Amino acid sequence: MSFKVPEDILICHEESKAKAFVEKVWGKRPTFICVIGNTETAKIPGISAAGAVPAITDFTPAADIELLYYGRCKCIDGVPVTPNGIPTPALVTMSAIGLTGMPFYAANGGVRVRPHAPYFELEGYPGEDIKNGAAVKDPKRVFENAIIAGENLAKVSDYLVVGESIAGGTTTALAVLLAMGYNADGKVSSTLSENPHSLKSAIAKEGISKSKSTPDQMKRDAMLAVAAVGDPMMPAAAGLIVGAARKVPVILAGGTQMAAVLAIVKAMEPKALDNVALGTTRWIIRDPTADLVGIVKQIGHVPVLAANLDFSPTKHEGLTFYEKGLVKEGVGAGGISIAAFCQSKGAITSKSMFAEIEKNYVKIMALAKH
Amino acid sequence: MSFKVPEDILICHEESKAKAFVEKVWGKRPTFICVIGNTETAKIPGISAAGAVPAITDFTPAADIELLYYGRCKCIDGVPVTPNGIPTPALVTMSAIGLTGMPFYAANGGVRVRPHAPYFELEGYPGEDIKNGAAVKDPKRVFENAIIAGENLAKVSDYLVVGESIAGGTTTALAVLLAMGYNADGKVSSTLSENPHSLKSAIAKEGISKSKSTPDQMKRDAMLAVAAVGDPMMPAAAGLIVGAARKVPVILAGGTQMAAVLAIVKAMEPKALDNVALGTTRWIIRDPTADLVGIVKQIGHVPVLAANLDFSPTKHEGLTFYEKGLVKEGVGAGGISIAAFCQSKGAITSKSMFAEIEKNYVKIMALAKH
Repeated sequence: MSFKVPEDILICHEESKAKAFVEKVWGKRPTFICVIGNTETAKIPGISAAGAVPAITDFTPAADIELLYYGRCKCIDGVPVTPNGIPTPALVTMSAIGLTGMPFYAANGGVRVRPHAPYFELEGYPGEDIKNGAAVKDPKRVFENAIIAGENLAKVSDYLVVGESIAGGTTTALAVLLAMGYNADGKVSSTLSENPHSLKSAIAKEGISKSKSTPDQMKRDAMLAVAAVGDPMMPAAAGLIVGAARKVPVILAGGTQMAAVLAIVKAMEPKALDNVALGTTRWIIRDPTADLVGIVKQIGHVPVLAANLDFSPTKHEGLTFYEKGLVKEGVGAGGISIAAFCQSKGAITSKSMFAEIEKNYVKIMALAKH
Repeated sequence: MSFKVPEDILICHEESKAKAFVEKVWGKRPTFICVIGNTETAKIPGISAAGAVPAITDFTPAADIELLYYGRCKCIDGVPVTPNGIPTPALVTMSAIGLTGMPFYAANGGVRVRPHAPYFELEGYPGEDIKNGAAVKDPKRVFENAIIAGENLAKVSDYLVVGESIAGGTTTALAVLLAMGYNADGKVSSTLSENPHSLKSAIAKEGISKSKSTPDQMKRDAMLAVAAVGDPMMPAAAGLIVGAARKVPVILAGGTQMAAVLAIVKAMEPKALDNVALGTTRWIIRDPTADLVGIVKQIGHVPVLAANLDFSPTKHEGLTFYEKGLVKEGVGAGGISIAAFCQSKGAITSKSMFAEIEKNYVKIMALAKH
């Protein structure tokens, strides 16, 4: 009997490769690693909703990691929310970790605020505002450190799931994709309901024009593109993926930010693309303001999968916003959900994930009130 | 047919438990983690030979980690040596990693000099001179972070091997053991040929007397003993061991420094002792100036194993010193050798380890000359 991908996993691109990928990881035990970073770009008004106010976006990645490890945050009171009170997608990730007992690590690509929790240090620095064209210091060093960590993680895991938490990350994703010559304008997602495409595009183009590297140099060398207009999550995630993909499959867990990482991976080690899939949420795929698959198609024949998460039955206001297209993805929410479905051979479903998410929502919102 | 422990593994304490432990890990796949730290105590003249001059001992742990990952150091030229040119025991560790392909991580308990390599950050601080009785800041936080890392490492490893690299560590080990009420005077080892027992003892006792905790408080609370006269490696190693031992066996890879960690582990989570063994080198066991087993006996019924490494056939001067009782142990050399014998089901032997060590000695000494 041939293998059948469950309905909870939507196949969005490269159907036969996608099926083969799901079959390859079915019943296997993954390790999840979440790469964190900060970029000053997040503080430009109107760019990010990953924090109640722009200044607090520095705390969001550290708070996400603490939530995953402890079920509560230490570096902030409550939990990360958008200005209108939508909880962080780490809520989905913590639910997947809780249901599976999946081993989980954090990796520091470059943060201003460090989590009160263990994490891989990779010698990165917090990112500057990409408008100035000099955003990330020495991305090559972080990339190389991350390769070593990825190779070692691959030795003890059937496969790796790499997520991210960095506010402002879709703007830097757009900028890096543009700098590398991809047609990404109007295609990246946003935490906000009104996707500020023209603002993002203006910032990205200003940064590219101010870079000391020429457009041709940035097209040829992904590390120059990252150094100019990227963010510190990117070289860390790309290195982990390249290192691990030499031995085991890797799910790039994220939306359009992970598409930018995919482009970097391709530039640094093209054959890594044979061993990866992009895993995201239904909300990203259904996002009318973005086009993830349209970006991935330009990069290569890489499967795109989406967890068919559905919050529409919820009575909790904070969760209804996900169905309205806000937040949608982050902290590896989509990819780790797919991994949870696969590890449990379908015993964990979208429905049981939703029940766990609602339970955790009540718990973390109770914390937020105290 | 009953299981037989190979001759390359010497059983030094708790024979039946030791045999059972070796049988339990036979053919299994471990993960190695090396905890690094610095203490100002190492800079007291006459205390440590883990560096050509006292000031350089700050670089030794970082250089050891780089040697393991890259086969060469980045933060110093050459490789760590004693003042008379004896190479770091990381030479043994890199040989075991090379032969087995064992997954390997570093963990930062608190260093002044960070390795140019990925490592687990655990929020520790470099240690102060124990003479002043206030040596380690907030060891509890590091211990708790390390527990989480240990639990996650245990999820994907059959067992864990925990080593250390910290210059001055036998003096802090003595001090913590004394502070916790153990009879350790004259029993800890030294990198030096003349073990400076009276100097170590005087420093330890001065620190204990200056601590703001009373002797009774330090006997009851291991974290107070570490805070007063310990080093930053200790709470990190103890936390990793406690976290991992909840799920899988753990080898404490080291000599008398790991005996101090064992005492801390017992104080923090007594039942962890049922799932651990101490693994060291023949040189430590044969050390006429120290008494590892005499310390372990006071702590509990924990097996002590030693790798029967033998450098006597060597023609390389730097290696002959190990047979003369200098350096003897460090960077998990003994414990990881035992793990290599076990993982390979005896295919890797003391003899094949020695051949690999000689090969690597020539390589790293060639680096040291340039």
